[in-house]
Amino acid sequence: MRILIDGMGGDYAPEEIVKGAVKAASEISETIVILGPEDEIRKQLKANSWKGENIEVVNATEVISNEEFPAMAVRKKKDSTIVKGMNMLKDGEGDVFISGGSTGALLAGGLFTLGRIKGIKRPAIAAWFPRAGKEGVTLLLDCGASVEAKPEYLYQYGIMGSIFVRGITGNENPVVRLLNIGAEEGKGDDLHKTAFSLLKEADINFQGNIEARDVIFGETDVVVTDGFSGNVYLKSSEGMSLAIMREFKRKLTEGIVAKAGAMLAYSKIKEIKEVFDYSDAGGAPILGLRGSVLKIHGNSKATEVYYAIHRAVDYVDNDITGMITEAVSSTDALAGKGEE
Amino acid sequence: MRILIDGMGGDYAPEEIVKGAVKAASEISETIVILGPEDEIRKQLKANSWKGENIEVVNATEVISNEEFPAMAVRKKKDSTIVKGMNMLKDGEGDVFISGGSTGALLAGGLFTLGRIKGIKRPAIAAWFPRAGKEGVTLLLDCGASVEAKPEYLYQYGIMGSIFVRGITGNENPVVRLLNIGAEEGKGDDLHKTAFSLLKEADINFQGNIEARDVIFGETDVVVTDGFSGNVYLKSSEGMSLAIMREFKRKLTEGIVAKAGAMLAYSKIKEIKEVFDYSDAGGAPILGLRGSVLKIHGNSKATEVYYAIHRAVDYVDNDITGMITEAVSSTDALAGKGEE
Repeated sequence: MRILIDGMGGDYAPEEIVKGAVKAASEISETIVILGPEDEIRKQLKANSWKGENIEVVNATEVISNEEFPAMAVRKKKDSTIVKGMNMLKDGEGDVFISGGSTGALLAGGLFTLGRIKGIKRPAIAAWFPRAGKEGVTLLLDCGASVEAKPEYLYQYGIMGSIFVRGITGNENPVVRLLNIGAEEGKGDDLHKTAFSLLKEADINFQGNIEARDVIFGETDVVVTDGFSGNVYLKSSEGMSLAIMREFKRKLTEGIVAKAGAMLAYSKIKEIKEVFDYSDAGGAPILGLRGSVLKIHGNSKATEVYYAIHRAVDYVDNDITGMITEAVSSTDALAGKGEE
Repeated sequence: MRILIDGMGGDYAPEEIVKGAVKAASEISETIVILGPEDEIRKQLKANSWKGENIEVVNATEVISNEEFPAMAVRKKKDSTIVKGMNMLKDGEGDVFISGGSTGALLAGGLFTLGRIKGIKRPAIAAWFPRAGKEGVTLLLDCGASVEAKPEYLYQYGIMGSIFVRGITGNENPVVRLLNIGAEEGKGDDLHKTAFSLLKEADINFQGNIEARDVIFGETDVVVTDGFSGNVYLKSSEGMSLAIMREFKRKLTEGIVAKAGAMLAYSKIKEIKEVFDYSDAGGAPILGLRGSVLKIHGNSKATEVYYAIHRAVDYVDNDITGMITEAVSSTDALAGKGEE
C-alpha cells in the first residue's frame, strides 16, 4: 500500500506533516509518499532523524492556498501537491491521498482528476463527531461538499456513510438518521421530507430523523445532512464548546479558592477537553470520488497526521471506495437515482 | 397596559405561571390577565397568598397540547387559552400575550386571528441567545416559524429584528448579520446569496455574513437565519452545552481528589452554567403579527415567567409592533418586497 500525503497542506506544514509521517512510518510496513518541494521535505526528514525505508518523497513545487479560487487553481497549478496527489491516485501510484490543504481545491481536484464514481451524484465530505459519555464517534455527512442539496444526494450520503462506517469500525449494521428539525416523519422542508422517504427505501439501517440537540449523545452512527445544515451543525457545536471551555478557564482561575479547586480538578478538566476535541478522529473522507481522499484539518499537528495515516490504512484495507462503487452498480434503486 | 398570560401553557402550568405572575404583579402597576380554568387559577392565586388588585382571571376551559395539529386545534378549540388570548389581543382587551404553549398553535392562532402586518410575508420567531464573556444577548430569527424560507423573508427578518432590539435594548444601531457557511460575500446557497444582496439594501446596520461558530462570541446583535438553519443552530448549541455540563459533573465527581477540587470550584461552575442557560432571557417574540406575542419555553418556571412579564412591558412600552408596521408602510423597498 502506498499512502500519499500532502507535505504542504495546513498551517503547520511541512514540519508537523513530516513529523507525523515519520512517527507513523516507524510503526507500519506501508509506504508513505510525501509530496512537496523535495529539498524542504528531505530537510525535515533529516531533522526528524529519519533513517527508515518506507518514506518516499515526490517533488511538487506548487501549493494551492485557501485564498485561491479552487477550480481555477487546480487547473493552473499542475505541479501543486494537490493536483499531483490526485494524478498519482488516478494513475495507481498511490492508494489513498491525505491532505490538510484547501477543501475546495481537494474537491475540485478530485472531481476534475478522479471524477465521481459512476452513479454518484455528488461527493460528500464526511466528518467524525465526538460522543458525550459514550464510546465511538459519529459520522456526519455532507459537511459542505455541496451547498445546494437535493433529496437524491442525501439518499446517497446515507448509503455511502453506512458503507464507510461499516468498513472502518466493523459495525455491521450502523444506525443512520437524517438531521432534521423534528424527530417525527413528515417534519422539515421539502428537501428533508423527500430525502426521508428515499432513505426509508435504502438497504441501510435507517431509523428516521434526529434533531441537532441529540446528535452528540451518540445513539446514531451516521447522520445524514445537507451541506448547509451540516456546516451550521459542526460550527455551532464548535463555537459552544470553545466558549464554555474558555469560560471555565476564566472562571476557574478567578480568585484563590476557585484557583485551588481548579488545580485539583485540572486533570479531569483536561480529560473533558479531550472528549470534545475531535482533532484526533483521523480526518474526514471525501466519499463518492473514484479514489480515496482523506481531508485533515488545516490546523493539524503531527498527532493528527499520525492518526490520519492509520485511518487511511483502514480506508484502503477495507476497500471502502470499491464497496461504494459496487453498491452503486449493484443497487438498482441507487443506480437509477444516481443518474443525472 | 394589560398583559395577557396563558395560565395553562407549558410543563409547569398553572402552578409556576401563577407564581411568576404574582411575583411580577407585586412589582409593576400594569394589569396581568391570566387565562385558564377560573377555579383552578384562583386556587393557585390563593396558594400564593395573592391579595393585590392588578391580577385578573379570564375563564378559558380548553388547552391545546403540543401533540395536536395546530391549524385544526385553533379552529376547533374556541375556548382554549391560546385562541382566547389571541382574540382578546385582537379586540384590544390586552396589549401583549405571553404563552408557554404549543409554538405551532401560537403561530396558527396568531395568523388566523390577528393576521400578518400588511406587507410582512411571514412572521418570525425570534429567540435570545447568550454571549460568552460579553454583556448582553443576541437575537436570532427566524427560529422555526417558516420551514421553507425565501430571500425576502430573510430580508424582512433583518428589519424586524433590528427594530425589536432597538426597542428593547436601546441600542440605536444594532449590528445585523446573516448566518451563513462562510464570512465572505458570495458564500452559501442561492437563498442566502440573494438574501445577502437584499439585506445590503435595507436601512439597517447590516455587516455581512456570520459563521455559526462566531455567533456566541457576541459581536452581532441580530442574527438573521432561515428557520431550518436557525433550529439546527439553537439545538446543536443546546446539545453541546448540555453534553459538556454533564461531562463536567461526571468527571468532577469521579475520585476523591477531583471531588475536592470540584467542591472548591463549585460556585464558579454554577456561574458558568448560568451564562449558558438562557432560560431567563425573557421569551421569544413572534414578530410580524398584528399584535404582540411572546412565546416562552414549555419548561418555564416562575422565574422565566417573571422575566417574560418584564420583557412584555418593554415590548408594549416601546411599541415594537407599531414600529414594524410603520417601517413596512413607510419603506418602499420593504413594502414592495413584502407583497405576495
